[in-house]
Amino acid sequence: MTYCVGLWLESGLVLASDSRTNAGVDYISTYRKLHVFQPRPDRLFVLLAAGNLATTQGVLNRINRDLGRAAKQGHQRGSEGDQADLLSADYLFEAAAYIGRLNVAEQRENAQALRQAGASGEATFILGGQIEGQPHGLYLIYPQGNTIMATPETPYLQIGESKYGKPPLDYAAQSTLSLEDAARLLLLSQVITRRSNLTVGPPFELVLYPAGSMALSQQLKLERGAPELSQIIKVWTEIQRDGLHRLPRFAWESPATTAQV
Amino acid sequence: MTYCVGLWLESGLVLASDSRTNAGVDYISTYRKLHVFQPRPDRLFVLLAAGNLATTQGVLNRINRDLGRAAKQGHQRGSEGDQADLLSADYLFEAAAYIGRLNVAEQRENAQALRQAGASGEATFILGGQIEGQPHGLYLIYPQGNTIMATPETPYLQIGESKYGKPPLDYAAQSTLSLEDAARLLLLSQVITRRSNLTVGPPFELVLYPAGSMALSQQLKLERGAPELSQIIKVWTEIQRDGLHRLPRFAWESPATTAQV
Repeated sequence: MTYCVGLWLESGLVLASDSRTNAGVDYISTYRKLHVFQPRPDRLFVLLAAGNLATTQGVLNRINRDLGRAAKQGHQRGSEGDQADLLSADYLFEAAAYIGRLNVAEQRENAQALRQAGASGEATFILGGQIEGQPHGLYLIYPQGNTIMATPETPYLQIGESKYGKPPLDYAAQSTLSLEDAARLLLLSQVITRRSNLTVGPPFELVLYPAGSMALSQQLKLERGAPELSQIIKVWTEIQRDGLHRLPRFAWESPATTAQV
Repeated sequence: MTYCVGLWLESGLVLASDSRTNAGVDYISTYRKLHVFQPRPDRLFVLLAAGNLATTQGVLNRINRDLGRAAKQGHQRGSEGDQADLLSADYLFEAAAYIGRLNVAEQRENAQALRQAGASGEATFILGGQIEGQPHGLYLIYPQGNTIMATPETPYLQIGESKYGKPPLDYAAQSTLSLEDAARLLLLSQVITRRSNLTVGPPFELVLYPAGSMALSQQLKLERGAPELSQIIKVWTEIQRDGLHRLPRFAWESPATTAQV
């Protein structure tokens, strides 16, 4: 499994991923799930991937092939009917739809054989970024190619093993957070997920994008044992255990105990 | 869905359940998932149920029928080959195996029709309790009838919608907790799950069993809006948000910000 999460902020975007891939419990390995594309200075994309590794790698290969061809051929966007790619998209939603088409096409390649084997080739993506002249945005791209967008009311999107790390987002994910507070929250959501589920693990990758900048302000790769990780784990464990003792006492408990509240 | 959780302590048992049952999102209703049986003064059982509601109700009906018949007939346990029920079991594992047999039998009744409809009749149970002369214990009973037991190393068992509420258990569930601290922890795990998932909801039921007592010391039913619930939610929300600000600052953040840590 995998866990990726993105948060849309008024001031920009923060995206985080783990790097664990497993086929069963006896084949666990490390693959990057966070990929940055800047095909031109006027646009920046961050792509997070979860699901079938063959499909997600296939989609990345197709993106890079399209970008390579366009670079050679001096790609230009044609009439309105033409379908945009990362280089020619005028809007972020066009870039998301492009990833969606690649996702569906890649799954189709081996669909029959996968179905016969009882396996799923499905993959899900999160695309965050900005194209100059347009607002920054964050999209979730389903295995069927359709997309939804993060909004100020529900600013976060998750893919993969998303349940363990959802509660802290439900308590604290707001579009008014600073980039740094948002980064701490997403890293926390990753660390909590990893604590409860073996199929999610470091290195964790984290990027911060200030709106309008067309550049990442920070890009971190936190390996197992990185001080940032160890500190978060230590502090959060204390907060959880202290927190339990700060919860209100039951009516039947002794006044002495109640006094500690 | 449903969420039930039990915690084995050196000093006894704590069990908690929600009361929400849903078939899709347009048929949500309230059913108790926590059931207490004391067929004789020398034994006490608490049963938590998750899964197909028809199956769990069927199992409860069979338990009550067996207890009723035994009361009429003056049930006695026969030779070693006889299979125990709640009244005749000498060990808790025999009672768990009995529930497992009822579970399998109940599922078998409509298995073919359910399979054809693409539905699952599966149910899962947690059985906690004690039989005089034996230690108290906590069992998880799978849809296939087999069982596992909580141990000092892994003292908690969950059934139903278990992922959202697992992190606080992983951080704080220890067999050395007091009954009250354990009760707070399980209630917290319920409240967190409910915050992130609509299919889990109040009233929450909670029981505390002190080892060796053959009686529940506390039995709570916390309705929506109960002060105990509102307080836990309020305090925990504060702890989560404060906690985020207590997490270590990143290296690139300003010293002024760092000083707040």
